[in-house]
Amino acid sequence: MPIPSPESVTEDCLLGGRVRLIQPRDGYRAAIDPVLLAAAVPARPGERVLDLGCGVGAAALCLLARCPEAVVDGLEVQPSLAGLGERNAALNAVEERFAVHRGDAAAPPAGLGGFDHVMTNPPFFEAGSGTPAANASRAMAHAEGELDLVGWIKAAVKMLRPKGRLTLIHRAERLGDILAALRGRGVGDVTVLPLWPKAGRAAGRVIVSARQGVRSPLRLLPGLVLHGTGGEYTPQAEAVLRGGAALDPLAGLGDKS
Amino acid sequence: MPIPSPESVTEDCLLGGRVRLIQPRDGYRAAIDPVLLAAAVPARPGERVLDLGCGVGAAALCLLARCPEAVVDGLEVQPSLAGLGERNAALNAVEERFAVHRGDAAAPPAGLGGFDHVMTNPPFFEAGSGTPAANASRAMAHAEGELDLVGWIKAAVKMLRPKGRLTLIHRAERLGDILAALRGRGVGDVTVLPLWPKAGRAAGRVIVSARQGVRSPLRLLPGLVLHGTGGEYTPQAEAVLRGGAALDPLAGLGDKS
Repeated sequence: MPIPSPESVTEDCLLGGRVRLIQPRDGYRAAIDPVLLAAAVPARPGERVLDLGCGVGAAALCLLARCPEAVVDGLEVQPSLAGLGERNAALNAVEERFAVHRGDAAAPPAGLGGFDHVMTNPPFFEAGSGTPAANASRAMAHAEGELDLVGWIKAAVKMLRPKGRLTLIHRAERLGDILAALRGRGVGDVTVLPLWPKAGRAAGRVIVSARQGVRSPLRLLPGLVLHGTGGEYTPQAEAVLRGGAALDPLAGLGDKS
Repeated sequence: MPIPSPESVTEDCLLGGRVRLIQPRDGYRAAIDPVLLAAAVPARPGERVLDLGCGVGAAALCLLARCPEAVVDGLEVQPSLAGLGERNAALNAVEERFAVHRGDAAAPPAGLGGFDHVMTNPPFFEAGSGTPAANASRAMAHAEGELDLVGWIKAAVKMLRPKGRLTLIHRAERLGDILAALRGRGVGDVTVLPLWPKAGRAAGRVIVSARQGVRSPLRLLPGLVLHGTGGEYTPQAEAVLRGGAALDPLAGLGDKS
């Protein structure tokens, strides 16, 4: 697939303008999922992060904006998206901290592994629709079955160093499949963070994390309510999506258990 | 085990006095879990409910108080608790709507099955402790391993009629095990309702429900915050625990999806 012509891309802003993002006009476009995902990764200075299926680099760029001493490798199977990822790295002046690799999550390039963190926004069908979208890139970004989600998560876990942490965002209705994919993989300290579209509604997304080689029990964390009754972002969502804050629902409570 | 002597039991009140409960002074004692469990069972008039591992009948009596046209069968393996369950049925004048059966969840009495609802508060170790309590009844009510929880849930699903609903309450840290136990059992429309001890804390308990022979996707429901900052019950918890209200976090929103 060729790199899209200039006419077929847009330049958008994330994190209140901290991140500039060139992305295809049609097909899968970054909304808030990669921003929330990146905000939930507790990367410390010097840590190495893999963005599995990084697309044009939305989550990677958001993480690099919040964690200026982290480095991110991205893995993307679609050459056109990987190419835009490199353009975005340059556009945001983080070429030295964001390397985009071409390759499939199921067969990653040799030498890629041992990451402190793996973050991923796995492909999925559109919520509420059983049919993949017409656009090929969109379809590839969204189409997978249950086995594919499990396989994707298995591949992500394999890229972790011992005690490294996987963080993923996905549709809440797949929570059972996500937790099942993590069973028997030697991971623990699973956290489930619900993202509620509004107070009193079922969660639309979940952010699930787990650590390699750690046995701590699962925690169902307090969720984040995204929108108020008028449709505006809540102050908590605003702080993450526009203010660039970390997404840590237990922060400041002095009780992480 | 003999029926406890009068000296070793207490009489307590649930649901703001709507339910009177005789229970052992020592060992497992009903707190809020069975009250919340019963509040989450959407039993309609005439429907048959099984309380699997009913103990002295706390959940059953709470459900009967809220649903005056439902009937409940209880199954309890410990004769002393089953005996107190019958005393409690009489004490609350619901002998005709609450029958207590002696028996093991793994090998229920013949003829018991086809229920519209199965509700259960499965045995478990004390949260935060790896050791079962000294008291025999308490230990039996609380001690089980991962296989036992899975086996318990399998047994509960078997007691449902087609499209009947299982509702259980358990420690949130076992959510992965609970969802795993439900996989491949032909159930769907799974709902997960987190119970937060306070705002901003990880959930302590979850109420999980699922329907036999239904394929709808999982929903992660808005949770119930139990306590305010001063330790008092929140108004929402108060309405359920003392006011006898149903626990339906999507009620009144006009959007059950």
